Amino acid sequence: MRTTVCLSVSILLLGVVALSQTRTTPKRQPVYTQDGQLRLPSDYREWVFLSSGFDMSYNPDMTMDHHMFDNVFVNPEAWQAFQSTGKWPDKTLLVLELRLAEGKGSINQKGNFQAGEPMGIEVHVKDESRFKGKWAFFGFAAADSTAKMIPLTQDCYSCHAEHGAVDTTFVQFYPTLKPIATRRGTLEAAYQKSEPGHQN
Amino acid sequence: MRTTVCLSVSILLLGVVALSQTRTTPKRQPVYTQDGQLRLPSDYREWVFLSSGFDMSYNPDMTMDHHMFDNVFVNPEAWQAFQSTGKWPDKTLLVLELRLAEGKGSINQKGNFQAGEPMGIEVHVKDESRFKGKWAFFGFAAADSTAKMIPLTQDCYSCHAEHGAVDTTFVQFYPTLKPIATRRGTLEAAYQKSEPGHQN
Repeated sequence: MRTTVCLSVSILLLGVVALSQTRTTPKRQPVYTQDGQLRLPSDYREWVFLSSGFDMSYNPDMTMDHHMFDNVFVNPEAWQAFQSTGKWPDKTLLVLELRLAEGKGSINQKGNFQAGEPMGIEVHVKDESRFKGKWAFFGFAAADSTAKMIPLTQDCYSCHAEHGAVDTTFVQFYPTLKPIATRRGTLEAAYQKSEPGHQN
Repeated sequence: MRTTVCLSVSILLLGVVALSQTRTTPKRQPVYTQDGQLRLPSDYREWVFLSSGFDMSYNPDMTMDHHMFDNVFVNPEAWQAFQSTGKWPDKTLLVLELRLAEGKGSINQKGNFQAGEPMGIEVHVKDESRFKGKWAFFGFAAADSTAKMIPLTQDCYSCHAEHGAVDTTFVQFYPTLKPIATRRGTLEAAYQKSEPGHQN
């Protein structure tokens, strides 16, 4: 009788441990629909922020009729792994969100702030066994919760492969990560050669 | 004997529960030095990002010789409370970080990205029993880990009190929070009156 009670209490407590861990540290991994679309992670705004840009463009001829911010978030598991290794683990999810920039508004007189809903979202996923080249991009139109994979023929893949500072990602634009990659020696050789002051 | 083992196992398991919760959800609260300075939370970059601005200024005559971003983070406990109430709980910590904006760099041709270490950090703390007016500001110079409270006579207090959309904070510039405050009816009356299109 006592043994039964003891086991029951122990199992109950183990259940509480499991529940507690599930609730407090849900594992963020890519989730796909049956037809291979990526589901937009619903809680990405609670992930780790990497950086934001303003009107950034890699094309000098690009013109826009509005100003725009981009915000980049990463799943906490990948962030933690990068802190200790300078590398992205399998199942890394980088979420790039575009938001309209407003100028004058409330008491703001100069410069720009972010406003409104996202204008679009792009997710860069590392899923080694699933994608040729290990990584894939998915583009979500505003308010979409699933997106098809962007075909491998698109420029984003070749541009990230050629210019990404770490493993096809633009760590050079993430001020908290670039020093880690530098220290850990994980910057791509091609990127290092392109840096100002590089000695051949 | 069995009872002793049972209790020991139960106590051990309860210990695991407590440890698990401590490890997975550390409670972020303001921490002060003995002489009343605020300690900079070392992990604020893992908190919830609220928004970033570019060259924002509330003074139309402000000029700068460089471009700058501001990033705002909030402790996860306060974020969660705001999600369900539209209000800031006691022990809310808002961290505003300033970063230099660079233009051309790597493959970026237009617009700006964030670079380097923070140029300065300001923390807005709600600690109801500690501060007259419930909130206080602390300004950290670059690389400082503690800061003295900014005196109540400084403009930041009166400006936030007059123009903050929610409880002396600039929720009007946080695109994920403004809709919640609107829905929950927690926008300040003075802020609502100042909004374009307001009917008296």
